[in-house]
Amino acid sequence: MRRSEHRGAVLTIDLDAIAANYRFLVDRLKGKACAAVVKANAYGLGVERVAPTLAAAGAEIFCVAHLDEAIALRAILPDVEIIVLSGPIAGAEADYARHRLVPTLNHLGDLAAWRKFAAVQRGCRAALHLDTGMARLGLSAREVELIAEEPRLLEGVTVSWILSHLACADEPDHPLNRQQLETLRAMLARLPCRAPVSLANSSGIMLGAEYHFDLARAGAALFGVNPVPRQPNPMRPVVRLQAPILQLRDVDRTTTVGYGAPQTIEPPAKLATVGVGYADGYLRSSSPRAHGVVDDVLVPIVGRVSMDLAVFDVSRAPLHAVQPGCMIDMIGPRYTIDDLAAAAGTIGYEVLTSLGSRYRRSYVGGAAAPA
Amino acid sequence: MRRSEHRGAVLTIDLDAIAANYRFLVDRLKGKACAAVVKANAYGLGVERVAPTLAAAGAEIFCVAHLDEAIALRAILPDVEIIVLSGPIAGAEADYARHRLVPTLNHLGDLAAWRKFAAVQRGCRAALHLDTGMARLGLSAREVELIAEEPRLLEGVTVSWILSHLACADEPDHPLNRQQLETLRAMLARLPCRAPVSLANSSGIMLGAEYHFDLARAGAALFGVNPVPRQPNPMRPVVRLQAPILQLRDVDRTTTVGYGAPQTIEPPAKLATVGVGYADGYLRSSSPRAHGVVDDVLVPIVGRVSMDLAVFDVSRAPLHAVQPGCMIDMIGPRYTIDDLAAAAGTIGYEVLTSLGSRYRRSYVGGAAAPA
Repeated sequence: MRRSEHRGAVLTIDLDAIAANYRFLVDRLKGKACAAVVKANAYGLGVERVAPTLAAAGAEIFCVAHLDEAIALRAILPDVEIIVLSGPIAGAEADYARHRLVPTLNHLGDLAAWRKFAAVQRGCRAALHLDTGMARLGLSAREVELIAEEPRLLEGVTVSWILSHLACADEPDHPLNRQQLETLRAMLARLPCRAPVSLANSSGIMLGAEYHFDLARAGAALFGVNPVPRQPNPMRPVVRLQAPILQLRDVDRTTTVGYGAPQTIEPPAKLATVGVGYADGYLRSSSPRAHGVVDDVLVPIVGRVSMDLAVFDVSRAPLHAVQPGCMIDMIGPRYTIDDLAAAAGTIGYEVLTSLGSRYRRSYVGGAAAPA
Repeated sequence: MRRSEHRGAVLTIDLDAIAANYRFLVDRLKGKACAAVVKANAYGLGVERVAPTLAAAGAEIFCVAHLDEAIALRAILPDVEIIVLSGPIAGAEADYARHRLVPTLNHLGDLAAWRKFAAVQRGCRAALHLDTGMARLGLSAREVELIAEEPRLLEGVTVSWILSHLACADEPDHPLNRQQLETLRAMLARLPCRAPVSLANSSGIMLGAEYHFDLARAGAALFGVNPVPRQPNPMRPVVRLQAPILQLRDVDRTTTVGYGAPQTIEPPAKLATVGVGYADGYLRSSSPRAHGVVDDVLVPIVGRVSMDLAVFDVSRAPLHAVQPGCMIDMIGPRYTIDDLAAAAGTIGYEVLTSLGSRYRRSYVGGAAAPA
């Protein structure tokens, strides 16, 4: 492929680390099943390489957000279970059946549409999503009660999974965790159907066995994001972003850097410019707190990240490592996704899904690319 | 194309507005040339449709950030001038010549490499970039002085353009504007070569004639970003982002919304969930300040934007407009790119370049798609 052949910045994705992270979470689940969440192009890392790697590591159930993602995934993995977290799209019901996809019924409207479809296309399966505290998607307590009172609302619908989602799983002491657990149990007791139940996301897996039910759904932690933010990260790092120095500048008089001239640099100082900016998903809010790494030395970003460029103050890095063409680590083992996210005032998930399309992508290990 | 066929969210890009914005800026330049900056996939809007539209509107000079972008643009527009804002990549010099691209020489190292190449491949052209206050890319005052003292550093190099870049053009009263102007004039006086000069970006065009030199380089304003942030936006809006309501929720008891449960909603209230999240480039920092628009009523976002979903409080919107499938305007004439950027603590440029790949893209007007 021609595109990005000439770009210096390299995004390395360690597929073996993804596989190891999957196995780590499976171990924590002590026999309970673990779905792999690969929505948003496997959190930006490339579903075509990531999904086969996870399948080879043992994943048999996958979750995506949208129907189109599911259809693309089906072409990659013909035999796995695919749960689509959004509801069935009116008029596209037959696509779910054709590609053997399991839509998630999030409200009574979804349920009614699917009931109608299931009356014609018998046996096609669905997941029920119960809202236990996110107030985003999912059946409300009132809707569950309506179903309990009128079980024929489920008539002809094969419920294969019952899902819910934790809002604060990354804060183990947050009272909402237990509250959601109790709400879920109460809802399950009222529902006139039985199916394997799934509540825990990556952080939920770390909350312990009572959150595991029958199936966990792991996403971010597979890709190296810390599922236990107040503790050392048990996951293997997956992503490394390196950018070559395009230009070095010896600051010999007081100077401002970048748009808006927010920051003044006093001499003597050495600045290094790299060709990565917010159009590459290196969030503008990364400045002024983010760092890069040169030869194991943290180098601060200076000025504002611009569209295609960022500038680091490399004054304290060893001279041999700050020459034109030398690489600055912008994400890596020493300065992680979570570190960059904290600097940018966001979460590792957004750092991942923002990773742009202008990098040269290099995959390490893992399952082979599909033919 | 299968992908995104099933997605509800629609990104509409008004190519006629882009053409009109180009002509508006050309008018302001009173005969000076105006390059169109289409780096980063035309600020995320799709270079394949945007570049031909701008060419049809009269643009003959285009700027991109990287060599790969330039090669892709050459395939779209065989005859225009293409300036690549990053320096020539070692080993890829012949690609510039082959595709008739003009690299930008940003430092003496770039200049030396290009001089060597030009000795073999005669007549290939380059731009010189002078740093007048960004400290990002571009020749420093000291480097300009070295060239002034040793004009043979330019030997064999055909300098077609002399570029510099304003740091604070969107703040007309910022002292750095005039300072950069004076620095540029002083550098030009010292340089032992002559070529058309370019300083102004979109906002620079609005600073007035003395900033125009021979060529302006318009980017963001073409795509609807306000080049004069403290005044009404003279540009036509280009982008509209609309997402259908996936689920409505009548809040009948106090509830929290979304991850981290940052916000409590008191009954009675009506929440609407849409399938757009930060993986679609709707920045996570948009919450809690961003709004959507329903039937001309501003509706606030509630909770945190998540990867694939966002929730709006539509309590105050008219009932007929908040039904499942009804559209919420997330960007549009009533709530602009700049409004969303301000809510997210960033600039319109980043809102544009973040726009994701999961929308159905709909182009209005403009030049035809290339065959």
